Amino acid sequence: MQNNNVKILENILSANDKLALQNKQILDQHDIFGINIMASPGAGKTSVILKSLNLLEGIALVGVIEGDTAPVTIDADKVNALGYPVVQINTGGNCHLDSVMIESAIKQLPLDELNLIIVENVGNLVCPSSFELGTHARVLIASIPEGDDKPYKYPGMYRGVDVVILNKIDLKPYVDFNEEYFRKGIELLNPGVLIFPLSCKTGEGFPPWINWIKSRLANH
Amino acid sequence: MQNNNVKILENILSANDKLALQNKQILDQHDIFGINIMASPGAGKTSVILKSLNLLEGIALVGVIEGDTAPVTIDADKVNALGYPVVQINTGGNCHLDSVMIESAIKQLPLDELNLIIVENVGNLVCPSSFELGTHARVLIASIPEGDDKPYKYPGMYRGVDVVILNKIDLKPYVDFNEEYFRKGIELLNPGVLIFPLSCKTGEGFPPWINWIKSRLANH
Repeated sequence: MQNNNVKILENILSANDKLALQNKQILDQHDIFGINIMASPGAGKTSVILKSLNLLEGIALVGVIEGDTAPVTIDADKVNALGYPVVQINTGGNCHLDSVMIESAIKQLPLDELNLIIVENVGNLVCPSSFELGTHARVLIASIPEGDDKPYKYPGMYRGVDVVILNKIDLKPYVDFNEEYFRKGIELLNPGVLIFPLSCKTGEGFPPWINWIKSRLANH
Repeated sequence: MQNNNVKILENILSANDKLALQNKQILDQHDIFGINIMASPGAGKTSVILKSLNLLEGIALVGVIEGDTAPVTIDADKVNALGYPVVQINTGGNCHLDSVMIESAIKQLPLDELNLIIVENVGNLVCPSSFELGTHARVLIASIPEGDDKPYKYPGMYRGVDVVILNKIDLKPYVDFNEEYFRKGIELLNPGVLIFPLSCKTGEGFPPWINWIKSRLANH
């Protein structure tokens, strides 16, 4: 039984990876840079996206894909209120997005009018890391109140990303967070990965993150 | 293919539930009250457990089971340092504990010397809710910096628990958190569920939670 399960999982993963490649080709055909944003629930994915949309005005033409386990549109409504095209995916209880969901969502976006698609994955530090979506970059948002030991406890997620955003640095005075220990854990798993500490509340630290997006818009 | 997967998942779940019942019988035979603590990564599961261990000294004889996706013993070491028996489960990347893992872990605890077992599940607001472990109560730890919209986004988790702890209330002055909106979301999913706001930093709010444990120790 155990062996059967493993085989099936392998098939699903390889089917997912194939379709992810197709998704990437579609993005490339339209010269669109795709970002997959992953995080623990409440790390601030939506807040980082909303703030980034503001700072990218006039620079990037952005579409957003929102993933949630439940049939809610809380985050999508916020993106829509800013006037950006947005597609909501309800995973029906599933703990991650996959490339089939992204294929459907991409089709509903005005691809000819965009050069950046931001995907907000389901809040989860385990499952989303195993599923390629077809984006060009994987971004993990950590946050100060989550604690400094997360790289050690969720290595699969920290190992597979291109960028780590450390959000909520405005809360540093009020919680115990050893940034050196946090960075050491990341460095062990993912040497040289970019780390952007920032705060959605104060705006501190956003310029390097926005500059990184700009550079990748020019060169996926 | 889709149908095959669904069938297999049902088999796994029912096998898990059967073994969960057996685990519960073992706990009952030893007059042990079992708690399954679930939460998002960084909500403060370990901190709540450590503080509760202190407050339960002389009242409960506690054993702890720690679940992590990675081969780390960060949390188990903290419990061990306080002198309590603790078993570390490494799920090997799996996103939740299950009743097979708990069966193995229970066997390693001195059951005749305990009347309370606290299980710290993998940090995840989706997957652990689907897997019974054989405990008597399911406790969800939410936290102020996670945001007030989590019941709406992770209904499966909020629907299936007996207690919600709202941790990190000391951070309320520094983040936007509408407790009325949070409670309304829970009430819709899980009417009448117990909610204990508290802070591991200040100790505020712990007595009602500890009293709840005491009452359940007397009456599982």
